[in-house]
Amino acid sequence: MQYEKVATTYRKLQQEICTKLEQADGKSSFITDEWETGIGSGATMVFTNGDAIEKAAVNFSAVKGSVSENMRKSLDIESGASFSATGISSIIHPQNPHAPITHMNVRYFELDSGISWFGGGVDLTPHYVNLKEASWFHQQLKEVCDPLKPGIYDKYKVWADDYFYLPHRKETRGVGGIFFDHVAPVDERRFDQLFAFTQELANAYPRIYIELLNKNRNKDFTEAEKQWQMLRRGRYVEFNLLYDRGTKFGLDSRGRTESIFLSMPPLASWEYQNVPEEGTKEAETLRWLKKDIDWLHVID
Amino acid sequence: MQYEKVATTYRKLQQEICTKLEQADGKSSFITDEWETGIGSGATMVFTNGDAIEKAAVNFSAVKGSVSENMRKSLDIESGASFSATGISSIIHPQNPHAPITHMNVRYFELDSGISWFGGGVDLTPHYVNLKEASWFHQQLKEVCDPLKPGIYDKYKVWADDYFYLPHRKETRGVGGIFFDHVAPVDERRFDQLFAFTQELANAYPRIYIELLNKNRNKDFTEAEKQWQMLRRGRYVEFNLLYDRGTKFGLDSRGRTESIFLSMPPLASWEYQNVPEEGTKEAETLRWLKKDIDWLHVID
Repeated sequence: MQYEKVATTYRKLQQEICTKLEQADGKSSFITDEWETGIGSGATMVFTNGDAIEKAAVNFSAVKGSVSENMRKSLDIESGASFSATGISSIIHPQNPHAPITHMNVRYFELDSGISWFGGGVDLTPHYVNLKEASWFHQQLKEVCDPLKPGIYDKYKVWADDYFYLPHRKETRGVGGIFFDHVAPVDERRFDQLFAFTQELANAYPRIYIELLNKNRNKDFTEAEKQWQMLRRGRYVEFNLLYDRGTKFGLDSRGRTESIFLSMPPLASWEYQNVPEEGTKEAETLRWLKKDIDWLHVID
Repeated sequence: MQYEKVATTYRKLQQEICTKLEQADGKSSFITDEWETGIGSGATMVFTNGDAIEKAAVNFSAVKGSVSENMRKSLDIESGASFSATGISSIIHPQNPHAPITHMNVRYFELDSGISWFGGGVDLTPHYVNLKEASWFHQQLKEVCDPLKPGIYDKYKVWADDYFYLPHRKETRGVGGIFFDHVAPVDERRFDQLFAFTQELANAYPRIYIELLNKNRNKDFTEAEKQWQMLRRGRYVEFNLLYDRGTKFGLDSRGRTESIFLSMPPLASWEYQNVPEEGTKEAETLRWLKKDIDWLHVID
């Protein structure tokens, strides 16, 4: 059982992510909230009112409990009476509407029956899609995936397309990224590879995001662009409350509510029938919120 | 089968509600959006940027379809292959944080097997709980309920306590109201009574709300009180996306997304660990967001 080792490493990675984001922003800093509940402990790190970042949150948790009926169904667990789970999840909402929202999650799940698996993902949600940046983003993720197994980026990219999707809007959440779940190591060697992969992903996350943030943080924007940002954040809320597995798992396992809802935006808006006019940047963005786009080669 | 009659009456009631709200607000007016989808038709009426009302929405729909597996489970339907459903649902978000949010819904459901039922409810979500107003509100609802059956207010009040509840927050949505579902008429006479009751409820809704709105619309408020309103609206979003049956039914039956999400606030906010200090009005309000309060006699 490798649970303790993974948890210790993830907690360290959380701290590193926060340090990098703080340095990049330059104005505000993270507050750390260490917590304990009946089923485990964690540290919630939250950053607000930065120069470029309006809200960033990085949550670490390490929980144990018995497998509930809901969990058995939603996680497709056949055997095992109790579980241990640890993970990092993070979200960044920028101030500037021309900078994207991003999200990262890595997690490790272990059952007392001996079965274990990794899951996670990174995805990008621009308020305004920039093809060059979206393509570069996917290239970065591919480079993190390649050492794990040739072709695995393609698989995880499709998985993200399917997962980060709002069926009621017929929209993807953003330009996607990678997503994987229930990836079970067959032996020690495979465990090491998967564990290393999730660490690489958590490392790459701030590096990739800071590059995109710095490209856009000082761009001018209008009130209308800011309002569009609020509407896109509304979609983000819809995804997280209606479809996000982390939210579902958190609520089902009676996790810590304030940590589960960390990904919520500081401010979000809904308007009835906001349909951008043909030819606007907003309409153009909606055109790209689709599955099955080959982002790596979209600008070739 | 009484479906057509109910639908026609509800559509008329919708118009009357909107007229009353418009007159009370005095500044803005409703736009009407008549729509048709594969499974039915409806009219969505939306009011924004009023003097006292920031957003009001009144939706009417009349849909038919086949009973899906999801519906069979969530509505506990034993027989019947196809359904007809019609209803009005409404939400009002005021400008002033001292005025409450409110919601009303009446609906009629008919299966081809001959079974039919009514459902609905009215509830009040103050940003700041005012005991006198909450008590008066419940008294008004009791007066609408009493002609239907002695004691029925008490039953529907408890139902609302249980329904309008956010378990992950251990909070009720507001001060409750009444809620009922699957109330099936045993004969023609009972059908008439139930139908009349839902009409009374839809009639009382604007009258009750306008009284509360007028009491509070011109009160002074601070920036901090406005921010508290945004946070309470965040809770409203959580309820609607996580627990609301109308939202679930709408999404399951592939309803019209823009109409399903009508109840969303124009602007909502989330903050990590916003816990009001002891002794503040905000802390006092949280103290009252509990089940099993005898609102009728709370100020005796």
